Amino acid sequence: MDILKVHLKKILLAPELDIEQIAALTPGFSGADLANLVNEAALLATRRGAESVTLDDFTRAIERIVAGLEKKNRLLNPKEREVVAFHEMGHALVAMSLPGVDPVHKISIIPRGIGALGYTIQRPTEDRYLMTREELENKMAVLLGGRAAEHIVFRHLSTGAADDLAKVTDIARSMVMRYGMDDKLGHITYEGERPAFLQVPGAPPPSRTYSEETSRDIDHAVRKIVHAAFDKAQAVLTERRETLERGARQLLEKETLVEDDLRTLVGRPKKKHPSATRTETIR
Amino acid sequence: MDILKVHLKKILLAPELDIEQIAALTPGFSGADLANLVNEAALLATRRGAESVTLDDFTRAIERIVAGLEKKNRLLNPKEREVVAFHEMGHALVAMSLPGVDPVHKISIIPRGIGALGYTIQRPTEDRYLMTREELENKMAVLLGGRAAEHIVFRHLSTGAADDLAKVTDIARSMVMRYGMDDKLGHITYEGERPAFLQVPGAPPPSRTYSEETSRDIDHAVRKIVHAAFDKAQAVLTERRETLERGARQLLEKETLVEDDLRTLVGRPKKKHPSATRTETIR
Amino acid sequence: MDILKVHLKKILLAPELDIEQIAALTPGFSGADLANLVNEAALLATRRGAESVTLDDFTRAIERIVAGLEKKNRLLNPKEREVVAFHEMGHALVAMSLPGVDPVHKISIIPRGIGALGYTIQRPTEDRYLMTREELENKMAVLLGGRAAEHIVFRHLSTGAADDLAKVTDIARSMVMRYGMDDKLGHITYEGERPAFLQVPGAPPPSRTYSEETSRDIDHAVRKIVHAAFDKAQAVLTERRETLERGARQLLEKETLVEDDLRTLVGRPKKKHPSATRTETIR
Amino acid sequence: MDILKVHLKKILLAPELDIEQIAALTPGFSGADLANLVNEAALLATRRGAESVTLDDFTRAIERIVAGLEKKNRLLNPKEREVVAFHEMGHALVAMSLPGVDPVHKISIIPRGIGALGYTIQRPTEDRYLMTREELENKMAVLLGGRAAEHIVFRHLSTGAADDLAKVTDIARSMVMRYGMDDKLGHITYEGERPAFLQVPGAPPPSRTYSEETSRDIDHAVRKIVHAAFDKAQAVLTERRETLERGARQLLEKETLVEDDLRTLVGRPKKKHPSATRTETIR
Amino acid sequence: MDILKVHLKKILLAPELDIEQIAALTPGFSGADLANLVNEAALLATRRGAESVTLDDFTRAIERIVAGLEKKNRLLNPKEREVVAFHEMGHALVAMSLPGVDPVHKISIIPRGIGALGYTIQRPTEDRYLMTREELENKMAVLLGGRAAEHIVFRHLSTGAADDLAKVTDIARSMVMRYGMDDKLGHITYEGERPAFLQVPGAPPPSRTYSEETSRDIDHAVRKIVHAAFDKAQAVLTERRETLERGARQLLEKETLVEDDLRTLVGRPKKKHPSATRTETIR
Amino acid sequence: MDILKVHLKKILLAPELDIEQIAALTPGFSGADLANLVNEAALLATRRGAESVTLDDFTRAIERIVAGLEKKNRLLNPKEREVVAFHEMGHALVAMSLPGVDPVHKISIIPRGIGALGYTIQRPTEDRYLMTREELENKMAVLLGGRAAEHIVFRHLSTGAADDLAKVTDIARSMVMRYGMDDKLGHITYEGERPAFLQVPGAPPPSRTYSEETSRDIDHAVRKIVHAAFDKAQAVLTERRETLERGARQLLEKETLVEDDLRTLVGRPKKKHPSATRTETIR
Repeated sequence: MDILKVHLKKILLAPELDIEQIAALTPGFSGADLANLVNEAALLATRRGAESVTLDDFTRAIERIVAGLEKKNRLLNPKEREVVAFHEMGHALVAMSLPGVDPVHKISIIPRGIGALGYTIQRPTEDRYLMTREELENKMAVLLGGRAAEHIVFRHLSTGAADDLAKVTDIARSMVMRYGMDDKLGHITYEGERPAFLQVPGAPPPSRTYSEETSRDIDHAVRKIVHAAFDKAQAVLTERRETLERGARQLLEKETLVEDDLRTLVGRPKKKHPSATRTETIR
Repeated sequence: MDILKVHLKKILLAPELDIEQIAALTPGFSGADLANLVNEAALLATRRGAESVTLDDFTRAIERIVAGLEKKNRLLNPKEREVVAFHEMGHALVAMSLPGVDPVHKISIIPRGIGALGYTIQRPTEDRYLMTREELENKMAVLLGGRAAEHIVFRHLSTGAADDLAKVTDIARSMVMRYGMDDKLGHITYEGERPAFLQVPGAPPPSRTYSEETSRDIDHAVRKIVHAAFDKAQAVLTERRETLERGARQLLEKETLVEDDLRTLVGRPKKKHPSATRTETIR
Repeated sequence: MDILKVHLKKILLAPELDIEQIAALTPGFSGADLANLVNEAALLATRRGAESVTLDDFTRAIERIVAGLEKKNRLLNPKEREVVAFHEMGHALVAMSLPGVDPVHKISIIPRGIGALGYTIQRPTEDRYLMTREELENKMAVLLGGRAAEHIVFRHLSTGAADDLAKVTDIARSMVMRYGMDDKLGHITYEGERPAFLQVPGAPPPSRTYSEETSRDIDHAVRKIVHAAFDKAQAVLTERRETLERGARQLLEKETLVEDDLRTLVGRPKKKHPSATRTETIR
Repeated sequence: MDILKVHLKKILLAPELDIEQIAALTPGFSGADLANLVNEAALLATRRGAESVTLDDFTRAIERIVAGLEKKNRLLNPKEREVVAFHEMGHALVAMSLPGVDPVHKISIIPRGIGALGYTIQRPTEDRYLMTREELENKMAVLLGGRAAEHIVFRHLSTGAADDLAKVTDIARSMVMRYGMDDKLGHITYEGERPAFLQVPGAPPPSRTYSEETSRDIDHAVRKIVHAAFDKAQAVLTERRETLERGARQLLEKETLVEDDLRTLVGRPKKKHPSATRTETIR
Repeated sequence: MDILKVHLKKILLAPELDIEQIAALTPGFSGADLANLVNEAALLATRRGAESVTLDDFTRAIERIVAGLEKKNRLLNPKEREVVAFHEMGHALVAMSLPGVDPVHKISIIPRGIGALGYTIQRPTEDRYLMTREELENKMAVLLGGRAAEHIVFRHLSTGAADDLAKVTDIARSMVMRYGMDDKLGHITYEGERPAFLQVPGAPPPSRTYSEETSRDIDHAVRKIVHAAFDKAQAVLTERRETLERGARQLLEKETLVEDDLRTLVGRPKKKHPSATRTETIR
Repeated sequence: MDILKVHLKKILLAPELDIEQIAALTPGFSGADLANLVNEAALLATRRGAESVTLDDFTRAIERIVAGLEKKNRLLNPKEREVVAFHEMGHALVAMSLPGVDPVHKISIIPRGIGALGYTIQRPTEDRYLMTREELENKMAVLLGGRAAEHIVFRHLSTGAADDLAKVTDIARSMVMRYGMDDKLGHITYEGERPAFLQVPGAPPPSRTYSEETSRDIDHAVRKIVHAAFDKAQAVLTERRETLERGARQLLEKETLVEDDLRTLVGRPKKKHPSATRTETIR
C-alpha cells in the first residue's frame, strides 16, 4: 500500500476517499499498474470537470484496465507466450542464483495489471533499510535476467524489457548520483534525481548543477554498471541453460509456477511461505 | 478507436459526448487524420469560448476536412498523381517482400483524411505485444518504401515523405532510447521520450538527463538504423523494379488496388480477407 | 483567405465576427501584412481591456496601416526607390529564368502592406502538394534574387532583404529537418520545427532532442543550401545583367509592370492571365 | 512620437489616455528617457494597485525624473563635466566626418532625461527605410565616437559609454543575425532577435535554433564588426585631435553647441535647420 | 527552533498557529526530520483543499512519522544494526580526533526522526559566525566518518551515507562557489547557490552565469575537496581501528553512548555537559 | 534612502505607507541590511495573508533584526572578534592607500544590520556618475582588503568575506559585460546582467545570447580582474603590515574608530567631516 500512497500523493483526492478501499480493489497490482491506475482515474476526473478524484473514478478506471487485460490475454500469440515464458524464467533463475536477493515466490505468464504480459513475484524475507553496492548489482542482474534469457535463447532483443531497463537505469543512476558508489565521481551527490514529492510546489525545476564533463562521467559510470549487471545475468543463465529451458517449458504448460515448483526445478529443499510482495513484471 | 481515444485524452470533452458517435463519423481516417480532427474541433470550441468540445464541434470539423479533401482531389496534377502512385506502390512492395510485416490490404491514390494524397492499408494478422529489433527494422523499411520508390524512379527527394520520416524517426529513437537496442548505449533507458499523457499535469517538462556525448551517440545510432532501413527498402525495390513500375501503372489506372490485385501482381496465391486496419498514409 | 485564417487562429475572435468581412477589407495584403494586421488588431483589443477581437479592432488596425503607408510612400527617397526597383526586378528575372517556378504576374515599387517597399506577385499555375528538392532550391533562388540584384548592381548588402532571408531560412531548415533532404543527416526528422497551432496548449515547449553535433550538421547543411541558392540567383542575374538594368529602369518609370510587360522585356510570347496570388514582398 | 508609441505598447494604458498629451510633456526626451518614463509610470500604477496606467501616473513619473535631473546637475564634478564634453564632441566630430550619417543638430553637457549626463542630437535629413552595411558601420562609429574620444584624450575606459555599447551591440548583432551581412554566416536569419511585441503572448520564449559553433561564429563576427567601427572612430578623432580639443573646450564653456557653431568649428558653410530629432545620449 | 522556522517559511501557515507548539511536539527532531515534517503537514493540508497549514495538520503528520519509526525499529535486521553502529561510531571518532570540531554529546542506534537509522549529536561549545577553510574540511571529514568506517570494516559502500554525502557536497560547493576557497576559481562568487528564501517570489530561477569550463573547474575542485576529506576520515579511523571496533561493540550493546562513555572509550578526562544540539544523523 | 527605494520597488507597499518613516527607523542600515529588512517585512505580510506590506510589518521585521543582533553580539568569540578587527582594518587601510577611493569615515566591530559582524563606512566626497576602469579596480581592492588582511595575518581563508566577494564579482562582471573594459571581448555588451526592476513583468527571463566560448572568455577576464585586485590589496597591506597590526589592536580595544583616529594611525593631518554614508560591511 506504500507504493499506492506514493502515487496518490501526486493527485488531489476527494476528502471522503478511503485509500484502503482502493487497495482492496487492486490485489496483485504492480507499482507500474498502480501508477497507471492513478493516472487513468485522474484523467476521468479531469474529463468530468471535477477538481478531485473520487472512488467512482477509481472504480471506472479499474474496470477499463481489467477489460483491456481480458482482451489482451485472448490475443497473445504462441510465439509471444514462449518469449514471455523464457523472460520470466530468466528473472527467476537469476534471482535464485545470486546471494542477497529476495527469493522468488511465483512466476506466471497470465497477464496481470496494465502493461504486464507475465510477472515474477519475489518474496522479501524482510524489509531492507541499507543496501550495499553488491546487493544493488545483484538486484539489477535479476531485472536484466528476462532480457538476457531472451537473448540467449532467441538471439534477439525485444521491446518486452522496456520496464526492466527503466528500473535498472534508475538504480544505476542512484548508485552513481545519490550513493557515491563510483570511484571517479566520488562521495558526492549530483542533483537532478530528487523525487517529485520532495520538490517545493510551484518552485522551478532543479536545474543541473554539474558540468558537461561530469554528466559524461555519470553516463559512462552508469553504462559500465549496467553492462556488468547484464554480463552477470548472462553468465548465470548460460551456465544454467538447461534449467532455463526446462523451466520455461514447465511455465508454458502450467502458466504459473510457485516457489515449491521452482525449488524442485533447481533441486533445492522445500521452505514455508511467508506473505509475498510482487516486485517484478514485464510488458 | 484506440487511436481516437488517445487523441481525445488531450482535450476536455463535453460530458454528454459519446466517443462511438465520433468513431462512426470517421470511417477510414488515419491516426494523423484523427489527430488533426481533434485539433480542429478543439479550435472551434475555443473560438466560441466554450470550455469543452461538443459533438457539434466535431461535426463542423469533419465537414471542413471533407470539403478540403474534395477541393484537393480536383487540384492534384498528373505529375503529382504519378509520384503518389509510385510512393504507395513502394510501401506495398516492400511490405510484401519482408518477413514479419503485416500484409497489405489496399493501396489507393484517392486522397483520404487531411494530409494524405494517397494511402496504403496494412492488415494486421493479429495484435502484437512484443516486437523484436528485426521486426522494427522491417517496419521502418516499409515506411521508407515510398521515398525509396520515388528516389529510384524519379531520382528526386520530395516533401511527400515527411510523415513517413517522422514515424521512422520515432521508431528508431525508441529502439535506442527505450528498448536498449544499441550496443554502445546499452540496456539503459534515456529520458525525454515520455508520451504527453504520462506526464504529471503542471509538472515541469522532464529535462535531458544524459550528457552531450550520449546525445551524440544516440543521434549516430539513430542515423545508422534509419540508413540501414532505407538501404533495405531500396534493395527490395531495385530488385523488383519491373513489378514496381507495373504496379504503379495499374494504380494510376484503377486508383485503388486491393490485396487480390497485389497478389496477382507479385504472382502469389489468393487468400481470404479478415477485417483491415489502415496504418500507412502519405501526404 | 487560408493565410488569414492561419493567423486568426492565434487570437480569440469575437463570436459574431465574420472572417469574410476582414478578407474583403484586405485585398492584396501579403501574408506578412495579414500577420501584422492581426497583431495590431489584437493589440488594440488588449488595450481597451477586451478579451476578444472585434471587427472594429480590425477596421481601426487597417486604417492605421494604410495611413502609415501613405506617409511612407511620400518619404521614400530616389536612391531607395532605385534600390527597390532593382530588388523587385531581381526577384522577377530569377523567377522567369528557372524551371518549375510560378510565373510572375506583377511587380511594383508602390509600397503595399505594412513592411513592403515594393512587391513581386507570382501567379501559381496550380496548387502544389508535393515539392522536390530542386523546386525548393529554385524557390529560394527567386527569394534571394532581390538581394543578388542589389549586390550585382550596387555592390552592397542592405537591410531590405531581411524578410526574404527569413523565408529562405525557413525553407532550407525544413528541407534539412522535416524533409530529410540532406545526405549526412539522413531520412530523419529533427524536432523543434512544429508549427504553433499543432502544439498542445499549456504544454511545455518542445525541447531540442538532438545533440550539439547534429545541430552543427544542420547549420552546415542549411548554410550550404542557402549559399547554393544565392549563387544560382547571382548566376542568372549576371548573365542577364542587361535585362535586369533595362527592367529596373522601366519599373522606376512606370512604378508597376505586369506579366505582358515582363514577357516583352525578356522577349517571350504573350499569355492569358488567370487570377493572381501575391507571394513575395520586400521591406 | 513613434518611439513613445513603441514603448507604450508594452503596458496597458487607461482607455481615456491621450498619447499626444504625454508627447507634449516630454519635449526633448530621448528614446531611453521615454523607455524609462514608461517604466516609472507603470511602476507607480502597479504600486497603487491599478490595472492600467493613467495620465496622472505619467505626470508624477515626469516630476520625479525632472527632480532627479536637477539634483544630478548640481552634483556633476568638474572632471566629470570635462569627460562628458569630450565624449559628446567625439560623437559629433565622427558624425560630421563620415558620409551617409545624419548631420548633428546640437550637442550639450546639460543633463536631460533620466540617464543622460550630456547628449548629442542628430538631425535626420529624411526618414530611412533601407540601410546598407556601410551606413550601419558609420552609424556604429558615431556611437563609439564618445568612448573613442575619452580613450584618446584621457587614456581611460569609463562607464559612461554603457548605453552606446548596448546600441552598437544591437546593430552589429542585427547585421549578422537578421540582415545576413556576414560572409561566413551567409544569407540566413538566426532566431532569438525577435522584438517583444511580435511574440505570441503567453507563448514560451523562442529558444536558440542554431548550434554552439554558429553561436561562436556570430560572436566572432560581431566582435570584428564592432572592433572595425571603433577603429574607424579612433582614426577620425586622432586625425582631428586638435578640432576635438577645441570643440570640447567650447562645449565646456557654452554647455550647448548648435549646428552653426559646429560648422564653424570644422570650417564648413552654414545651412538652414529643419526640425531636429535627438538620437544620441550618454549616461 | 531556528531550523524549524527556516522550514516553516516555505509554507503558508494558518494565522492562529503557534510555532512554539510545534517545537514542543518535536523534541530531538533533526533538521532533516523537521523538513520532512513540514512537507508532510503541507501535503495533508493540500489534500484536504486548505490554503494554509494548521496545527492539526502538524499533529497528524507527527503521528504518521512516529508510527513509521516504531515499525521500522522492529524491522531493522542484526546486520543492519551492526553497520549502523560502526557508521555512528565513525562519525563520533573522527569528531573526537580533529581540532575545531564540536564535541560529541551522544550517539545512538535507536532510530529517531523520519529517515534516521541512528544518529550522532554534536554539542557546539558556542555559536560560530566565521569558519575557516580548515574547519570546514574537518566538518566534512566528520560527515564522511560514517561511510569511512563502513568501508574500513565491511569493505562495502552502502546507501546509508546518502544524507551525509548531500551535506558534504553542499559544504564543498559553498567553499568553491560562495567563499572563494579554490585557488584556480579565485575570490569570486558563482551564482546558482542562492537559498530559496532569498529568491524574489515569482521571479524566474537564476540561470547559470558561468561557462562550461568554469562548471568543470568547479566540479574538479569539489571532487578534490571531498576526496581529501574522505582520506582524512579514513586516516583517522585506520589509525584508531581498535577503538572504532570497541566503541561499535559497546554501542550495539547499550544502543546509546553519551559524552562520558565516549571520553572513557578514547581515554580522556571527564567534562561538564552544556545543552546539546543534534547535528548529524544517518538514514 | 535611494537604496531603500530600490528595494521597496520589488514589493507591493500598502498605499498609506510613508517611506520616510521606514527610513527614520533604520539609521545606519547598509544596503544589504535594507534588502534583508524588505525581505523580512514582505515575508511577514505574506504569512498573515496580506497582499501589501504595511508599516507594522516593517516594525516587526526591524524588531526581529535588532533582537538577532543583540544575541549575536553576546556570542561572538574572542578569536572571531580578532579576525573581524583585522578584516575591517584591511578594508580601511586599502581605502586610505589608493587614489580615487572614498575616504573612510568609521570602522567598527560592533555588529550592525542583519549579516554584519563589523563594518567599514566610507564617506563619499561627492556623488559619482562616471567611473573609470582604474577607479573600479581600486574599489575592488578595497572590498578585497578584508580577506587580504585575514590571509596575511592568519594565513587562512574564511567565510567572512562572502559578501565582499559577491560585490567584487558584480563589479568585475559589469566591467567585462556592460562597460566593454576587456580588450578581447571588445566594446560590446553581453546580455544577462539586466537588473530585475528593468525586466518587463511577466516576460520570460532573458536567455544567454552569447556562445560558450564567449562565456569562457568572460570568466577568464573576470578572474584576471579579480586576481589583480586581490594582489593590489595584498601588496598594500604587506607593505603596511605594521600599521595593519597596530590599527586592528586599537579597533579591538575601542571597538569603533573614526576618521580622525585612522588619520592619526597612518600619520595624516586632520580634516572636517561631512555627513557620511556607510557602504561596506562584512558578515
